[in-house]
Amino acid sequence: MSDQPSHASHAADALSRAIRAAGSPVCVGLDPALENIPGEVVGSHASDRIEHFSRGVLDAVRGIVPAVKFQSACYERHGWEGFRALERSMQSARELGFIVILDAKRGDIGISASHYAAAAKHAGAHFVTVNGYLGISGIEPFLKEGLGVFVLVRTSNPDSAAFQSSRTTGGATIAELMAQSVASLGISRQGSSGLSDVGAVVGATQSAEAAALRRLMPDQIFLIPGFGAQGGTAEDIRAMVRIGKGFDQAGVLVTASRSVIYPKSNGAPWQDSIKLAAHDLATQILHAVDNG
Amino acid sequence: MSDQPSHASHAADALSRAIRAAGSPVCVGLDPALENIPGEVVGSHASDRIEHFSRGVLDAVRGIVPAVKFQSACYERHGWEGFRALERSMQSARELGFIVILDAKRGDIGISASHYAAAAKHAGAHFVTVNGYLGISGIEPFLKEGLGVFVLVRTSNPDSAAFQSSRTTGGATIAELMAQSVASLGISRQGSSGLSDVGAVVGATQSAEAAALRRLMPDQIFLIPGFGAQGGTAEDIRAMVRIGKGFDQAGVLVTASRSVIYPKSNGAPWQDSIKLAAHDLATQILHAVDNG
Repeated sequence: MSDQPSHASHAADALSRAIRAAGSPVCVGLDPALENIPGEVVGSHASDRIEHFSRGVLDAVRGIVPAVKFQSACYERHGWEGFRALERSMQSARELGFIVILDAKRGDIGISASHYAAAAKHAGAHFVTVNGYLGISGIEPFLKEGLGVFVLVRTSNPDSAAFQSSRTTGGATIAELMAQSVASLGISRQGSSGLSDVGAVVGATQSAEAAALRRLMPDQIFLIPGFGAQGGTAEDIRAMVRIGKGFDQAGVLVTASRSVIYPKSNGAPWQDSIKLAAHDLATQILHAVDNG
Repeated sequence: MSDQPSHASHAADALSRAIRAAGSPVCVGLDPALENIPGEVVGSHASDRIEHFSRGVLDAVRGIVPAVKFQSACYERHGWEGFRALERSMQSARELGFIVILDAKRGDIGISASHYAAAAKHAGAHFVTVNGYLGISGIEPFLKEGLGVFVLVRTSNPDSAAFQSSRTTGGATIAELMAQSVASLGISRQGSSGLSDVGAVVGATQSAEAAALRRLMPDQIFLIPGFGAQGGTAEDIRAMVRIGKGFDQAGVLVTASRSVIYPKSNGAPWQDSIKLAAHDLATQILHAVDNG
């Protein structure tokens, strides 16, 4: 512990505490799309159904997972009413005790970035996913608002390698160059957990690359999509774990969306199926991290 | 003209026609911030004032500029009511005959990108600014919606060079690598104007780099911020012009925001000052491009 006054609400520390309380470093992603929402979930407008479904998922996974991640695009596509559903759902998540991640992948220059940061704060986010292509100065406004960030470093989509894995003359790939910026920005943002408010998005499908990224970013929480559905394995997760730390300080937060919120129907009520899928995910990931 | 059936509503062609009609390849950026809005503009809520101001700017620059660009962050910071003000302002712009650019810098993977594309279409955009860090597959959904895009290639903010100007082992900078992807994606998206629906954001403050980017992207419209306020000059603009083409096919669209919508007060009514500033910008840029 340092003698310096710590942040009033350190995002990384809050996440670490929530992971300890829930028992596993996992996150459920809310990517609601009308065509996948169970018929039992009704509403007078599209945005109402989205909101009711979101609330239903939150109630189902409460106590099982520490964090939820809202895919902004899924709400925005329903216009301002969708945006209102997003804000209400995020507020519900906060009231239910979740750590709230706004997956908006925002990235702009200083003044516009500060508007995005204010928007995310207003909506109730603890963390926001951000894009650093324009430079690090576009990330700082989020930190100034007291938010944590996950900077896109290495994503799990099939065509991401063409760009992100290109090598620069200094020897680093583009993703590694971004990782160096992330580590450097995050060094003064460490909490008492040893984890920084400046985290990184690192896909689960690139185990060798991920280990190299962990070396470059020792204090970062990795927000890890792509487990299961996109081919990521327990071994990939283990490559990203901070060695010798407990599961609450391992620096990983594995996120799954469709595999949890749209589980295979087994005849049970839809919320029970979600609860079961979230529990399975939490168990698998705890096992992977504990063997890390 | 090709014998192939052309796009029902080719965004680049529509922009080229609008530039010809207005007489200059310029764009006014709407970045409304409460602290800068004239006192005469009233409203019962923050988002009302933003909306009234936006409408006032549109009325002032109508007939002078072909295109307007909405900075999404400035509206989003006022929550769902701000988002509603954005949608209404974009609809007004469309009804008034402007080409409408949504400056949202969205960038996500396939399925989420398609949600963002639907959102932008729904809101009334002709073009959207997008971020290609995650890969080209995240840009295609916007084209599928019939939208044009401006991909962030080389931005004008002070710290952008650290990342964007890093050189890759193939000899290209990161910005040039992005430019190659943009040109390649855009090649099948050319309209009868010879310009592609896949454009690029290239800041006005990097004249040597900009000329290299023009060589890599011969068919792209460059959306150019940074003229004036951020130090960009007429010479920088000329470095980006497609040689031997008229101003409507020069492949440049110079955008200015604060210098036009918050002009120095000269005692005139606020909309008259904006009209004058827009007219000055249009004249300067037409002169720069005609000497190109």
